[in-house]
Amino acid sequence: MTTWVHVPQNSDFTIYNLPFGIFSTDGKSPRAGMAIGEQIVDLSVLAKADLIKVEAHNFLQSSLNDFIALGKSITNKVRLDVQQLLIDEVSPLKNRPDAFVPQDKATMHLPVQIGDYTDFYSSLEHATNVGKMFRDPENALLPNWKHLPVGYHGRASSIVVSGTEIHRPKGQVLPRGAETPVFKPSGRLDFELEMAFIVGKETKLGESILVDKASDYIFGMVLFNDWSARDIQKWEYVPLGPFLGKSFASSVSPWIVTLEALEPFKVSGPKQDPEVLPYLKYERPFNYDIQLEVTLAPENSEPQTICKSNFKYMYWNMAQQLAHHTVNGCNVKVGDMMASGTISGKDETAYGSLLELSWGGKKTIRLTNGQTRTFIEDNDTITLKGFAEKDFIKVGFGEVSGKILPAKK
Amino acid sequence: MTTWVHVPQNSDFTIYNLPFGIFSTDGKSPRAGMAIGEQIVDLSVLAKADLIKVEAHNFLQSSLNDFIALGKSITNKVRLDVQQLLIDEVSPLKNRPDAFVPQDKATMHLPVQIGDYTDFYSSLEHATNVGKMFRDPENALLPNWKHLPVGYHGRASSIVVSGTEIHRPKGQVLPRGAETPVFKPSGRLDFELEMAFIVGKETKLGESILVDKASDYIFGMVLFNDWSARDIQKWEYVPLGPFLGKSFASSVSPWIVTLEALEPFKVSGPKQDPEVLPYLKYERPFNYDIQLEVTLAPENSEPQTICKSNFKYMYWNMAQQLAHHTVNGCNVKVGDMMASGTISGKDETAYGSLLELSWGGKKTIRLTNGQTRTFIEDNDTITLKGFAEKDFIKVGFGEVSGKILPAKK
Repeated sequence: MTTWVHVPQNSDFTIYNLPFGIFSTDGKSPRAGMAIGEQIVDLSVLAKADLIKVEAHNFLQSSLNDFIALGKSITNKVRLDVQQLLIDEVSPLKNRPDAFVPQDKATMHLPVQIGDYTDFYSSLEHATNVGKMFRDPENALLPNWKHLPVGYHGRASSIVVSGTEIHRPKGQVLPRGAETPVFKPSGRLDFELEMAFIVGKETKLGESILVDKASDYIFGMVLFNDWSARDIQKWEYVPLGPFLGKSFASSVSPWIVTLEALEPFKVSGPKQDPEVLPYLKYERPFNYDIQLEVTLAPENSEPQTICKSNFKYMYWNMAQQLAHHTVNGCNVKVGDMMASGTISGKDETAYGSLLELSWGGKKTIRLTNGQTRTFIEDNDTITLKGFAEKDFIKVGFGEVSGKILPAKK
Repeated sequence: MTTWVHVPQNSDFTIYNLPFGIFSTDGKSPRAGMAIGEQIVDLSVLAKADLIKVEAHNFLQSSLNDFIALGKSITNKVRLDVQQLLIDEVSPLKNRPDAFVPQDKATMHLPVQIGDYTDFYSSLEHATNVGKMFRDPENALLPNWKHLPVGYHGRASSIVVSGTEIHRPKGQVLPRGAETPVFKPSGRLDFELEMAFIVGKETKLGESILVDKASDYIFGMVLFNDWSARDIQKWEYVPLGPFLGKSFASSVSPWIVTLEALEPFKVSGPKQDPEVLPYLKYERPFNYDIQLEVTLAPENSEPQTICKSNFKYMYWNMAQQLAHHTVNGCNVKVGDMMASGTISGKDETAYGSLLELSWGGKKTIRLTNGQTRTFIEDNDTITLKGFAEKDFIKVGFGEVSGKILPAKK
């Protein structure tokens, strides 16, 4: 497949991808678009011109929720119809420069209004590393971990789009050896390399999603940085889980890559041993080979790669996460976001957080500008990137980037 | 103050109360109303008749969010203006029977669209009881508990209004002495007696609410039943907190009692020792004397009181909860719901859950119909009630009721 639109070599946004997002340009309200190369296809223009068979009002909104709620039979058709329009040499789109907006002239917004946000903890390597550091090196993994995809509810209101600057959070911290906490800016600020999926179909309270049907309920995926203040988290999280150590912000990439675009990159996951309960059994491949990378850029310095991981390392897959989440009858809504948990690999260079890379602050990470890091310092920018590639087909996520500003006075 | 509307003796919905809710009647869309005695005042009718100075479209919605977002200067004025209309002997409302709907002819809905839901754990007695049972009787309270209001994010999508029937959840449970879990309907289904407040004013990401200003951000309160499956919870909750043991449903009462209506019932809370950090210091009274009661009714049997507690027992108050929640810069939105955690008193009859009343299933609760309970059985109905009363002024919450149906096949 080739398109008549210019797509630079190595672009994440090839003709095979066509992810959905919400953008705005000077003086106009946010609306829905699709990324191709360095351009955005304005879907409302296509709808008004009757080039796609969806009412334009579905695209003239500040979130994709209503469009996604139309269902995969319609959203997939829109994607394939636009793909055809971008391929055909005699395409009516060629005469519609108003349908294209350069990405560098647009502001990207959060692609969906997020009802509920859930964070899983589905990487065996990450859970083992954290268990070794926080609890017992001999029994790093808790007894429930291999029987169910451990997860918890997170804060939806503070999920922001790539590019949003975030102030270092303040909170209660227990100094080493002390018995009473102090109030201060976090001294152990971290990123977490994650991906998240967006729910595309709702269920009613009391319904459960069968593991074999779960992909019908997943619209697509984004990159997800679950910013974490380790010192705040450590003092607060027993017994009810992470709260203020996480809720100050999470950042997502603006383009939702559809599950259909990721289909060529499906792979099998790690063997699950012990065997899981029947409601979690998923025999077919449902992991994805998505290469992930994290860079850290100090103020006025070049970004430097500090981690390379892969989504395919996940022990629990998205179908199992969704089946488990709803097995008690909990209902899901369109726009709900479910993150993977930190994606770490076996190799030390594949650890998806500074907590693991610096092994709890004990190991120093050397930067090319001569500085060192154990955790994030003020004015550092953290960027997550991800793409899948196979047989000369590339489908990428772009990036999610965020700069940490000093704590507010 | 007296009103010309008939208010039965002992009604929760006196002229001093006037709570807001969302109701519907046959064939009409949900809209906003105010409870008085056995009637609902249809606020959209009053707005259209220019009897209150708010555009009617704010009331012709399926949630109160847009109305609440107008701010307390407007929402309080509406409440006081309607109060005056219900008091005046020569009131234009007397000629408007279309402005009244009998409560028994209306269906009540969830009063707000809930963005995020947070559950605190702010009763010293409850936290101590649970700590004794689940962990160490000698060190029941964890070291952080008296330094910060422990809380966690809950699931917003499964919060339902009073009267909604709920199927017993299924999930993974670890049988006593076993090493591998089984999948089954919960055998230890419980209620939790809680109250929740509704956020009335939003903050931006990075902002914190000062403890002294917190009441400006609280619109009002409801009764809250945080249904809990103890066996599912116990197996899943370490290390990231409660998840499926809670997310199958929470039930709320339909009428939001404003903070202003509760003003006469303010009392001081328990002395906090050790002293809290400055950002949590709140010197004035900010607890409320609200009498709470829980009844259990087996199928075809009378409801029987199984617990009497009081909101004033709370160790952490709502101002402290909100100041803590936002101290890291986490933003709040109008309609966010924040629950107290189980409200238990010192006395054994004041324990706000069956977990405590049956002491982990070891003590049997005798019912007048000859049956016994340790946890909830199929077709039991649990009802929470609450009211404040002082100097012949009564302000009540009505009730939140829910019946447990057998697990789905």
